[in-house]
Parts: sequence; C-alpha cells; structure tokens
Amino acid sequence: MIDDKKTVLIVGGGAVGAIAAVNLETGGLATVTIVLRSNYNVVQEKGYTIESCDHGKLNGWRPSVVRNTVPNLIEEDIPPYDYVILCTKNIPDIPPTAVDLVAPALPKNSNKTTLLLLQNGLNIERPFLRPHPYVPILSGISMIGSAESSPGHIVQDEGDKLLIGAFPTSNINPAVPERRAEQFVEMYGKARKTDCKYSPDVLHDRWKKLVFNACLNPICAITGLDDGRLRLADGALDGLVRPAMWEIVGAARAVCGVQLADDVVEATINVDPLESYLKPSMQQDLDKGNFIEFENLLGEPLREGRNAGFAMPTLEVLYQLAKAIQWRIKEERGLVEVPKKK
Amino acid sequence: MIDDKKTVLIVGGGAVGAIAAVNLETGGLATVTIVLRSNYNVVQEKGYTIESCDHGKLNGWRPSVVRNTVPNLIEEDIPPYDYVILCTKNIPDIPPTAVDLVAPALPKNSNKTTLLLLQNGLNIERPFLRPHPYVPILSGISMIGSAESSPGHIVQDEGDKLLIGAFPTSNINPAVPERRAEQFVEMYGKARKTDCKYSPDVLHDRWKKLVFNACLNPICAITGLDDGRLRLADGALDGLVRPAMWEIVGAARAVCGVQLADDVVEATINVDPLESYLKPSMQQDLDKGNFIEFENLLGEPLREGRNAGFAMPTLEVLYQLAKAIQWRIKEERGLVEVPKKK
Repeated sequence: MIDDKKTVLIVGGGAVGAIAAVNLETGGLATVTIVLRSNYNVVQEKGYTIESCDHGKLNGWRPSVVRNTVPNLIEEDIPPYDYVILCTKNIPDIPPTAVDLVAPALPKNSNKTTLLLLQNGLNIERPFLRPHPYVPILSGISMIGSAESSPGHIVQDEGDKLLIGAFPTSNINPAVPERRAEQFVEMYGKARKTDCKYSPDVLHDRWKKLVFNACLNPICAITGLDDGRLRLADGALDGLVRPAMWEIVGAARAVCGVQLADDVVEATINVDPLESYLKPSMQQDLDKGNFIEFENLLGEPLREGRNAGFAMPTLEVLYQLAKAIQWRIKEERGLVEVPKKK
Repeated sequence: MIDDKKTVLIVGGGAVGAIAAVNLETGGLATVTIVLRSNYNVVQEKGYTIESCDHGKLNGWRPSVVRNTVPNLIEEDIPPYDYVILCTKNIPDIPPTAVDLVAPALPKNSNKTTLLLLQNGLNIERPFLRPHPYVPILSGISMIGSAESSPGHIVQDEGDKLLIGAFPTSNINPAVPERRAEQFVEMYGKARKTDCKYSPDVLHDRWKKLVFNACLNPICAITGLDDGRLRLADGALDGLVRPAMWEIVGAARAVCGVQLADDVVEATINVDPLESYLKPSMQQDLDKGNFIEFENLLGEPLREGRNAGFAMPTLEVLYQLAKAIQWRIKEERGLVEVPKKK
C-alpha cells in the first residue's frame, strides 16, 4: 500500500508520456513533472488537448509541473524523484543518448529514485548500468494506441495496456526493483482506467514485442505500406514478414531461452484489423522526416542473435537498409556533410 | 558491307531510343521510324531538343517517321522492318508485356526482321521464343549516360557505348543472328560517333551489368541514397553493396559458368566519380512514381541462382522489398484496389 504521494518525473510528453501523466495525476498517488521539447510552447501556453478512450476529452490539461529541460537535481537543489519515467524515442546513434538526457535527474550514490524505461527494444537498460549502478531500473512495455496528431494534441484510441517488471541488474538485490515495480503498478492502476500489470518476465515481454517491432516497423517504413496493405500485397507476408518474425522467434530462444507462443507470428500479423491500415511508429517517423529507432528494435536483437550463432538473414538486410536510411536523415538534418557535387 | 538502306523501327524514344535514332539516321544506312508514348505530342509538334556529347546540340530534330502506336504490319500493310529495336523499360509484371507491345510489328513465319532488345536484365529474350520462333533476337547492352530531363529534351553526357550480340535460341541457326549482329554494328558505327562493338558472349555482358543493376539499382531506390552517397554512408558498402554484388558474381558462375573479373565488384562500385552523385534508373523511377524494373534486374538472377542451388540472401530481401514497393505503386496508379478503411 502506498501511503504517501510519490513524485514522478516524466521525460518526453508525446503520445505515451502525456497519457501516463494524465493517468498518474488522476489516480491521486503521484505528483507529475513533465519534460517537453517539441510541444513545450503549446502545452505551456494552452495545455494539452486530449481525446482519450480511457480518460475522455480534456481541454487545456496540464500536469503539476511542465518544463522544457530535464531537472538538474544538484544545480536546482531538487530532492530525488521517486520515479523517473523515460518516454522519449530511444535513438542511441543520435545524440543526446538516453543516459546523457536523464543523468542530471538521477541521484548519484542513492537508490531512492527508480528509473522506468517506457521504451521499445532490447538492451535499453544496459547503458545505465555502469554510470548509475545504484538506480533500480524497470522495464515498461506499452501496448497503448495513441498518437500526437499535432503538437500537444493527443488522440488515444486504444486502451492503455502496460506491463511493468524489473530489469535484472548485477549490482542490486532483485527484491528492490521488484518491490518498486509492484508499487508502480499500484500507483498507475489507482485511477482504475488502465490495464497495468506486473510482469515477472521482462525478457519474454520484450522479445514478444520485437516480433512486431523488429519486423513490421522496418518493413512498413521501407516499403511505404502500412500493416494492413502489407497483408494485401502479394507475397509480402511469406516473402518478408513471416521470415523476419520467425528469425526473432528463433533468436529469442537461442539468445536467452525465451520460448514465444507457437501462434505468436500469426497473432502479431493479425494484431490490428486489416482495414485500420495502421502505420507502425517507424513508418510514421520516416514519413515525418524524423530519425528512426532502429538500433534497439533491430540492431540489438540482430547482434544478440549473431553472438548466439543464430542466422538472421532477413533482419540483417533490413538493419543495413535502415542504417543507410538513418544516414540519409542525418544528412538531411545537417549531422553529416558530403563533398560538393562536381 | 551494307549496300542498301535498312528500315529500323525503334519502340521507345526516351533517353536511350532517341540517341539511337539520331545515330542511325546520322550514319545514313538506316531510315528510322520511332514509336513514342509520353513524349509523343512534344516531339510530333516541336521535335526533340538534344544536347549530346556525341552529336552536339540538335533543336527540333525528328527521325524519318514519328508515331504514337506500334505499327501493325498486316493491318497497315507495311513491309517487315529490317530491325526492330525495343528501348522501353522492361516491366513484365505490368501490362502490356514487351512481347504484346512489339508483336504487331514482327512478321510471322519469316526471319526477315531482326529484333534487338536494348534493355537491361536477364532472360528478357525468353518470352519471345515461343510466339516468335523465327525472329533472330539480338542482345544490346548500353553503357550510355543519357537522361530525358523533360519530355522530348534529351541530355547525353556520357558516350554511347554499346555491346551487340546474338541471344542463343534453339530454333535458329546461330550464324543468322550473329551475321545480323555484325551488320547492325556496321550500321550503328557508320556515323563514327559511338563505340558500338560486336560481343560474342552475351551472357557475360548481361551478368556483368547486373553487378550494377541488380544491386545498386534497388539499394539506391530503397534507401534514397544515390550511388555517391552510398559510398559515404557508414557501413553501406560492406553491409549491403558488396554482399549483394558478390552474390551476383557467385550466381553468374553457378548458373552458367560465367566468370566475371576479380575486380568487378570494386570496379562497379567506383564506376562513376563519387561526386557526381548519380541516381540509378530505378531510383529515378521511384522518385517519379513510376513502376520499377525489378523482375528482370533482380528477380531473374535470383530465380536462376536459386535453381542452381546458390544462396542469395541479400538479393532475396531486396527483391521482396522491391516487389512490395511495386505493389504500392500499383495501388497508387489504380491497378489494385484495397478494401475501405474502417
């Protein structure tokens, strides 16, 4: 039982972070500080406009504190937050990295703050282990259907399903993050609007979600076909989608003994109704000219599979193509320069 | 020695066909009829505007006859042409096929007309063998640098290098197409502006050109990086380009014993100066929303390799992606319909 209000810092207030903020403040067990970047001005001036299947329509909504920088605990003399939730895209190949971004808000030499990585992909906790050895780290897998249609305007049309568990880290007694995870589930579930569960098997959750994210994300982004059209295009399922997904299923087993359900491939292909024609996040990002989140979604499972001696020929090519596309976006955004045309 | 003027029908008067027409008429050994589609109105009214490193600047140039349909020999009572040159894109998955397009201009039951396929890819002669068993078929490999910057406006900035040889066909004494090929080389070379050679080894030529066309064409089209930027993007050469090219080199040997030169991969990567940043034709087509020529460039070598038991994992994925992209273009152009969004 939580008997005092917790302080929560949410870094990243887009489609996922904003709904998390609403839900936590609604539950009444947390005071939320949110850090915004691209939508800061809009939200600071007018608040969020939220249309949510869980929370209804909210106009001009703001969490307790809205900021445009990550708090620096030392310089600003702020006591450690109980929870820091990272809800940004995780793009380790583009600075700043997740660790650099959050570091100022994490206490050194204390385990008071729990870090929740509400992000996709594999091995996302690893960069935190060495610089923040005392911070308990939780894994959050969100199955929410939510999008930011314009800055500060959030449309959530599928329920907020969330799995929370503890990442295993060598420095910390596993009981600590597990207790924190259970406490978070209580706090997050208090508003009774969500389906937030404790998960004892974080790795299974992450590999299972990769069946979608490592496969449909890059395939839709590269081909320009959404997940419905990909089911209609002749040969795309058998030629691309199924081979890629079975490589993830095999890698999960080879890398860490994770046994995904027999029907996981077909269930993932059919997870959305065909006729909703949904664009996975990587396709949306590419359409907008944003960087793509391909290293943790595609690169890490591929490297883990390779290290375990498991061949992933489809994902290998998708990864290399995604990497080349990311380089193109880097050039478009001025991060790399090329010699002048002659 | 050619002692009479030959009649030549060129089907497709874009960047390649227009320069071929200019060269043949300039040489004085051929009377050219050209069949145009998208640029017919412009060329019919004002003629071509041509800037050519071989032929200089030509304003309002027209070959002897300009048409917007393929001649129907029987209905129009036209005597068979000596040569029919096919210079269109070859996209067998989109109607009309090359055979259907050219059929009305080929005589039945006669070997008077020689068909020259001035197109890229593998096995492009096969669809003609059964419906036109008496027609000698030549292979043309063009290394010209030429583009149609707007309808009827042709800019040729690299010399017209052309390899002409006979496709082996089972029905015809090989001496016939070989003699026709040599005659064509004489006719095409008469203007003394080109580097047109007889080639005794058509298969070698085609596989060699596939090292570029099966690899850089789809990789540039899919990633949106031109052939110069692909050399700059970190890891793209080793991760994508070289593996794909070595698969073609291996397939050439496995499928038909064609031994490409040891340096073919590096020579192909560096064939254009980096800083010209050239977009291969498939990338140009995709940029324009045109169908892509992926079946003969990528699908046929892949199927041949597969039949010979040679693994081509990189080209397999590139092929499947190209096929899905083609399906997207089909939808954009109304060739396939999808159920309404719900």
